[in-house]
Amino acid sequence: MKRKNVYPFTAIVGQERMKKALILNIINPELGGVLIKGEKGTAKSTAVRALAELLPEREEVKECVFACAPKDKGNFCSECREKMDKNQELHVTKGKMKVIDLPVSATEDRVVGTLDIEYAIKNGEKKFEKGILAQANRNILYVDEVNLLDDSVVDILLDSAAMGVNTIEREGISYSHPSRFVLIGTMNPEEGDLRPQLLDRFGLVVDVVGEKNAEKRVEVIKGRLEFEKDSDKFIEKQEKAQEELRNKIINAKELLPRVEIDEELLFKIAKLCIELQVDGHRADISMIKTAITIAAFNGKEKVTKEELMEASELVLPHRMRKRPFEENSFDFELVKRIIEE
Amino acid sequence: MKRKNVYPFTAIVGQERMKKALILNIINPELGGVLIKGEKGTAKSTAVRALAELLPEREEVKECVFACAPKDKGNFCSECREKMDKNQELHVTKGKMKVIDLPVSATEDRVVGTLDIEYAIKNGEKKFEKGILAQANRNILYVDEVNLLDDSVVDILLDSAAMGVNTIEREGISYSHPSRFVLIGTMNPEEGDLRPQLLDRFGLVVDVVGEKNAEKRVEVIKGRLEFEKDSDKFIEKQEKAQEELRNKIINAKELLPRVEIDEELLFKIAKLCIELQVDGHRADISMIKTAITIAAFNGKEKVTKEELMEASELVLPHRMRKRPFEENSFDFELVKRIIEE
Amino acid sequence: MKRKNVYPFTAIVGQERMKKALILNIINPELGGVLIKGEKGTAKSTAVRALAELLPEREEVKECVFACAPKDKGNFCSECREKMDKNQELHVTKGKMKVIDLPVSATEDRVVGTLDIEYAIKNGEKKFEKGILAQANRNILYVDEVNLLDDSVVDILLDSAAMGVNTIEREGISYSHPSRFVLIGTMNPEEGDLRPQLLDRFGLVVDVVGEKNAEKRVEVIKGRLEFEKDSDKFIEKQEKAQEELRNKIINAKELLPRVEIDEELLFKIAKLCIELQVDGHRADISMIKTAITIAAFNGKEKVTKEELMEASELVLPHRMRKRPFEENSFDFELVKRIIEE
Amino acid sequence: MKRKNVYPFTAIVGQERMKKALILNIINPELGGVLIKGEKGTAKSTAVRALAELLPEREEVKECVFACAPKDKGNFCSECREKMDKNQELHVTKGKMKVIDLPVSATEDRVVGTLDIEYAIKNGEKKFEKGILAQANRNILYVDEVNLLDDSVVDILLDSAAMGVNTIEREGISYSHPSRFVLIGTMNPEEGDLRPQLLDRFGLVVDVVGEKNAEKRVEVIKGRLEFEKDSDKFIEKQEKAQEELRNKIINAKELLPRVEIDEELLFKIAKLCIELQVDGHRADISMIKTAITIAAFNGKEKVTKEELMEASELVLPHRMRKRPFEENSFDFELVKRIIEE
Amino acid sequence: MKRKNVYPFTAIVGQERMKKALILNIINPELGGVLIKGEKGTAKSTAVRALAELLPEREEVKECVFACAPKDKGNFCSECREKMDKNQELHVTKGKMKVIDLPVSATEDRVVGTLDIEYAIKNGEKKFEKGILAQANRNILYVDEVNLLDDSVVDILLDSAAMGVNTIEREGISYSHPSRFVLIGTMNPEEGDLRPQLLDRFGLVVDVVGEKNAEKRVEVIKGRLEFEKDSDKFIEKQEKAQEELRNKIINAKELLPRVEIDEELLFKIAKLCIELQVDGHRADISMIKTAITIAAFNGKEKVTKEELMEASELVLPHRMRKRPFEENSFDFELVKRIIEE
Amino acid sequence: MKRKNVYPFTAIVGQERMKKALILNIINPELGGVLIKGEKGTAKSTAVRALAELLPEREEVKECVFACAPKDKGNFCSECREKMDKNQELHVTKGKMKVIDLPVSATEDRVVGTLDIEYAIKNGEKKFEKGILAQANRNILYVDEVNLLDDSVVDILLDSAAMGVNTIEREGISYSHPSRFVLIGTMNPEEGDLRPQLLDRFGLVVDVVGEKNAEKRVEVIKGRLEFEKDSDKFIEKQEKAQEELRNKIINAKELLPRVEIDEELLFKIAKLCIELQVDGHRADISMIKTAITIAAFNGKEKVTKEELMEASELVLPHRMRKRPFEENSFDFELVKRIIEE
Repeated sequence: MKRKNVYPFTAIVGQERMKKALILNIINPELGGVLIKGEKGTAKSTAVRALAELLPEREEVKECVFACAPKDKGNFCSECREKMDKNQELHVTKGKMKVIDLPVSATEDRVVGTLDIEYAIKNGEKKFEKGILAQANRNILYVDEVNLLDDSVVDILLDSAAMGVNTIEREGISYSHPSRFVLIGTMNPEEGDLRPQLLDRFGLVVDVVGEKNAEKRVEVIKGRLEFEKDSDKFIEKQEKAQEELRNKIINAKELLPRVEIDEELLFKIAKLCIELQVDGHRADISMIKTAITIAAFNGKEKVTKEELMEASELVLPHRMRKRPFEENSFDFELVKRIIEE
Repeated sequence: MKRKNVYPFTAIVGQERMKKALILNIINPELGGVLIKGEKGTAKSTAVRALAELLPEREEVKECVFACAPKDKGNFCSECREKMDKNQELHVTKGKMKVIDLPVSATEDRVVGTLDIEYAIKNGEKKFEKGILAQANRNILYVDEVNLLDDSVVDILLDSAAMGVNTIEREGISYSHPSRFVLIGTMNPEEGDLRPQLLDRFGLVVDVVGEKNAEKRVEVIKGRLEFEKDSDKFIEKQEKAQEELRNKIINAKELLPRVEIDEELLFKIAKLCIELQVDGHRADISMIKTAITIAAFNGKEKVTKEELMEASELVLPHRMRKRPFEENSFDFELVKRIIEE
Repeated sequence: MKRKNVYPFTAIVGQERMKKALILNIINPELGGVLIKGEKGTAKSTAVRALAELLPEREEVKECVFACAPKDKGNFCSECREKMDKNQELHVTKGKMKVIDLPVSATEDRVVGTLDIEYAIKNGEKKFEKGILAQANRNILYVDEVNLLDDSVVDILLDSAAMGVNTIEREGISYSHPSRFVLIGTMNPEEGDLRPQLLDRFGLVVDVVGEKNAEKRVEVIKGRLEFEKDSDKFIEKQEKAQEELRNKIINAKELLPRVEIDEELLFKIAKLCIELQVDGHRADISMIKTAITIAAFNGKEKVTKEELMEASELVLPHRMRKRPFEENSFDFELVKRIIEE
Repeated sequence: MKRKNVYPFTAIVGQERMKKALILNIINPELGGVLIKGEKGTAKSTAVRALAELLPEREEVKECVFACAPKDKGNFCSECREKMDKNQELHVTKGKMKVIDLPVSATEDRVVGTLDIEYAIKNGEKKFEKGILAQANRNILYVDEVNLLDDSVVDILLDSAAMGVNTIEREGISYSHPSRFVLIGTMNPEEGDLRPQLLDRFGLVVDVVGEKNAEKRVEVIKGRLEFEKDSDKFIEKQEKAQEELRNKIINAKELLPRVEIDEELLFKIAKLCIELQVDGHRADISMIKTAITIAAFNGKEKVTKEELMEASELVLPHRMRKRPFEENSFDFELVKRIIEE
Repeated sequence: MKRKNVYPFTAIVGQERMKKALILNIINPELGGVLIKGEKGTAKSTAVRALAELLPEREEVKECVFACAPKDKGNFCSECREKMDKNQELHVTKGKMKVIDLPVSATEDRVVGTLDIEYAIKNGEKKFEKGILAQANRNILYVDEVNLLDDSVVDILLDSAAMGVNTIEREGISYSHPSRFVLIGTMNPEEGDLRPQLLDRFGLVVDVVGEKNAEKRVEVIKGRLEFEKDSDKFIEKQEKAQEELRNKIINAKELLPRVEIDEELLFKIAKLCIELQVDGHRADISMIKTAITIAAFNGKEKVTKEELMEASELVLPHRMRKRPFEENSFDFELVKRIIEE
Repeated sequence: MKRKNVYPFTAIVGQERMKKALILNIINPELGGVLIKGEKGTAKSTAVRALAELLPEREEVKECVFACAPKDKGNFCSECREKMDKNQELHVTKGKMKVIDLPVSATEDRVVGTLDIEYAIKNGEKKFEKGILAQANRNILYVDEVNLLDDSVVDILLDSAAMGVNTIEREGISYSHPSRFVLIGTMNPEEGDLRPQLLDRFGLVVDVVGEKNAEKRVEVIKGRLEFEKDSDKFIEKQEKAQEELRNKIINAKELLPRVEIDEELLFKIAKLCIELQVDGHRADISMIKTAITIAAFNGKEKVTKEELMEASELVLPHRMRKRPFEENSFDFELVKRIIEE
């Protein structure tokens, strides 16, 4: 049974910051994912589903269940490593990055995978049933209503995210495999908060609200209605814009390793984080990486103040310490002043 | 054992908005269902049960357990798809739309269906035990006391409603089938609120109250007593009105795809949603579809302000953001002014 | 082992409204049962147990486990229906109506009955173990401490009461049988409230309090002591009064279908319900039926204002909407004024 | 292993009301038991244990597990009834009344007994494993810390106490046996209240406090120390007093059926109960029975005001309705005035 | 694997009252144990562990798992009793009293022991797996963090403590054995209160606080450091003091049965308990026994006011009724005045 | 699959007190571990992971699963003890101390290990599956988010920490092994407090905060980025500093047993603990040991006031009794005054 057609990414009206955050994470999977917060009906899920159509191809080891990167030997799975150690050739193929769903009701077993203990005992060989974290390796892991996730699953996610490895243990037998993914979460803040530790893991956070301009709103509606009427035709019309964006992403990915950032800007970032009282040092690192990735998307080889400012809005607001009885106010004017001075 | 006779829809005294909302959803199953809220003893269930007698016939694939629509190949179940792919002929039959009950105490298994794993392993073939969501495909799914539904079942409903698909997974084996239904819920607000996410899924919401006019009230009572005395005779007397309504519904269904709406009205809808501060964009879409369906029921090929106003009362009130300490007041005068201006 | 002798109904001193409500429900099983609320030690259970001795005989299908009424073919159980369909003769016998206990600790299985699945699979035939709801068909179902009943059992009761049918489902197999009963509940309000939905299902509600007149109180005590001393003799002494009451009930049952009510009184009832702000329309129907039944008990063929007034005290007080911080005050003077005007 | 020696009842210093209440219940097992409330260390349990030594012999059917009374054929167990019906001779023996412990942690199975279902199915014969309620028949059932009893066990107790019968049901098979016992409970009110329904079942209630008079207190202590030093000798010294009390109890039991009470006193009792606002009519009955039993203990054939007054202190205080923020004050002067007037 | 060396009792600096309370319980196991309350790090556990080295030898029946006392035939276990009844010789051996740990996480089975039902059925012989209460017979039962003990285990303890017997029941089979122990508990009041009923069971209660005198504190520390450096040597140095204390205990045990107390002092004790409003009469008994034991430790054959005063501080404070909003103030001056007058 | 490279300890910028506390525990495993508290992103885990690279080699019994110390015969495991007792030679090997992780979600079985009961019964030989506490012997046991640990696991940790022994019991069979470890915990105080009893077990506690100096902050960031770019090269650059620190630790370990402390300083410590109102005497001991270890790290053979002051900041703040509504203020000036006077 065919899944429904997906609304094209380039046809999403407005919501620029959300779209940018998603694209940056495809360009640079080291950014730490993105959390999209917003009231219901603001196309959060639509955008993530649409993203799937933009995902670039990558090299992967043929028939490897974890789609290991042929050049990243340090993160090989045990099977690929064994072959390498035995000097067996690793065939390379091309595969598209994917969006893997983590349903809010998924059990731990489903996420982590399972080990067939009886098989192991009888055959002296580990038999692993792939879980969601196996599928997620080198892909996007998408959690809708991420704030409603069970604590036990959150723990697993945090662990894998921190280590890049998923380990499953049962009755003394254990099995590990690489599990590096771009974590994308969406949530409606009215339905409850996110555990602070999990919030902190998201590199970028964006808030989305419904369109407040009537003309734009009509545009949103018309797009939606047109798509509902004949989705095939609608998708075809967007194909050129989609193709352009795909290429821009590929170019940015290539440029990324060459982008540089001046010492002076590093100093500005440190000052920013101190002034804004963000906890710990993760924010600084995140600012730098995000600014570099924005520069790559803009086709620049050097980060400028402009990228810093854009990055600040994606990286800092959710990392400022909350004070009781105070709105968590991100003072962009203050940020500008510090960066410009 | 024969079920009790059902009170005829056309014999229900008053409650016009509730009756209209139910009929619109039969004409256009894309409207997103209807939630009926009201104190006990206000004929909510009676109306839904009565609706069953008005449901039109449709074409369906013969012997298909999901009653697939022969022309909607995109939403075929896997069995129909397989036959189509093998160029086997799909025999077509006529079947009536049905009201499927979802009892408030239904377990997840009962709703989703079950997979016989042992059978699958032995015979290499999936064996699926139909759940309520399978029966509900292309039918009406009715939940009485919908506000008392278990969270886990609500999650399943939301999922199916969003995707049009029900997926059942057990121990690594999964099975999907189409599950597109018109969701009708009734509830007594005194017994607790509805989860906001579920409220948002209902296209239309109506409030019902007991009749406050003594003459009409006597009419209600007399109908009720007459029906209790001799339901067969009572039903017979209403048959003509019922037949007329059935025909009106069939005609509206045919007209529906030809109804148009002016750009100017779209603009009015967008403005309305901004002014009334409804969350997201689902309200706009809902307004348009509802107005179009009302027009079809009225036999018009073009939506007018009149249909907009009627639609606004069904679509908007429950989507306005609640403010603490304020009544959720839907200001119909304001709506009128915006539409008329 | 012989059960204790039961205190005779006619020997109960005072508590007239409670006794009347019980008798009315025997005369007319459509009244919707009665809830008796009162402090401990006020002979609530005694009255219900005593009622058993007054229950009239009825015709029933011989050997039918549900005691189907030979003339009510619409409500036949599946066995009787099958026989009827095969034109087999249904032998008729006489049986006494019974009081069936629903212990507050009864499990769902005990109430609903069970299906022997293994048997069904092996023999291709449903095997049903009768539950309390099967025994209750055409009888009185008595729940002491009804306010302490489990929610799940309450749901089952409400369902059966609404449908007149009990359905048991297990692993895809289902079995239904008629289950129409007069529901009688007793409760001590100090031990907790009744779920509003269940309260609404009771057609009549009466409050009982201990006797406040010393002479009458001595009468109560002496009766009790006399009964404890030699219950056989005590019962014998009451036999004549009991017989008279039994006959009065039988006569009322015969008269009942012929009792009429004027349109003008219907109008008064509607007005009453509007003025007193009862929810929905169940109260109106209940008023009419109760007034008719009282008339039958009084040997009248036409309802008068007098019966309306008596009915109002049994039907309305518990259906008035509760207001926070206000006593649920039933203003009988107001009722009188509306009826008399 | 021999149980510890038990402190003799007649050696208990003070606590006259508690001792009287216990003795009255032995003389007249219909009094409804006694609840003893008091702070820790006030010899509550000691008194109950001591009571065991005073219990009289009674006739019982030989080898009957329920110790059926040969003359009380109405309450025969099913085995005795069967023998009687077959005209088999029932051999009679003498047995002492016993104190049966109901440990606060006892499970339902332990209390009710169990049915061996498999045995029943295989052999077509019920096999019942005696529970505490079987042992308790015609004996004293003692519950220490009765306020800490599980609700489910309390329900069982109330049921048996009300019916004089214990019924065990499992999978459709049921078994009943007589279970008439004198319920004695002790509790420390600091550890929580008693469920009102259970409180109401106790015929008599007494409060005990530690001795406040130093001389008497030394007496208490010396008795205790003497007993601890050489319990055999201590018991021997009390044997005469014990024997006298035993005889007094036997005489009272014989006199009991002949004691009478004047109509005038019944009227006083009714007035008392109305003035003191006790719930229901159980208090009146209890007053009469207690007064009669006191008279029997006093060797009188007619109840006098004196017995009424003594009874009032045992029967009424715990039955007065509690008012919020008011001490449950039993006004003995008022009682006296009403009785004397 | 050797357990760590234990800090010697006599080397504990300060904490005189705690040390005295522990020793008194060894001299007289009838004192009812001791509860030691104090902030963390105040050597509570150390003292109890140290006590083990001071425990005297006693006679016990050879190979008896409960270490029955050869002369206390009244408390024989069933095996010893059987041998005695068969006139088999009971061999006597010497054994040291032991400290048995009751871990706070111990399950009921672990505490009570288990019965092997299958074995019993097959072999017609009870097979009992010893629990902690079996080991505890005639020994010290030590519970660290006694306030954190599960309610179910507390119930078991209270039962055994009251009866001197542990009974295990499973599926109708039961087994009893003697279980008389000295209960020693330690707790940190910051971690929660003790159930009042359990508190009342402790004969003596002492509070300990950290040393507030700097010189003494250095002494504490130096002892501790010296012990950590070379525990063997440290223990050797204390051996003489330990030996002296051991002998003093043995002498006191011998003297104990001969110590007397004057009637006048009994009177003082009663007055004390009344004035201080302690609940019940357990305090009086406890005062007498403790004073007698102190006298024995002091080598006196007659209790004096001095012993009374010392006893009062160990026995009374925790038995005074707590008043809301008042410190539980034990007024030693008042005690002195009453004793001296 | 290779684990990620670890950030070198010597490259951590700032956080001197945390680094010192970690090093002191390696030098002297008797210090009682360290708890690191701090906001997220402050390199707490990084530091612990980095510590692993600094851990010195030690002698251990070859093939002993607990890595027993060949010279510490008193703490041998049962296998080593048996060999010793049989005069078998114990081969000695060198092994590095390790960091063992205790995941916050670890089950009790995983921590304690398991006993194969069936094996034991069949083969008469205990078969123990090593748990985390077995691995932890003579190593560092690291718990991230230690404040989120299950109570049952905390109990186990406290027990092992107190006894140096882990005992596993199942169905009457028990097995013990040495389990002496340095406990290191990290926690974010925003996520909840630590149980006071566990807090007390940590010898040292340090608070860490993010760097507030911009230059230093840039340094932190640059180190981090450099490491992410090419971790191999970054590690190489730090190798010399790491080697120096390793040697300093080894030298300090050797010096440690010879370091002395004057009586006068002991007196100062006692005074300090009294003035600051720390609970019990653990603080005093901890102060002394810590000061001695700091001296050893500083290459001194005698403790000076300087070491005392440094120790006070690591040992005392978390042991001061918390007062409601007061900040737990550690007044270093007061400490200085007491030490200097």
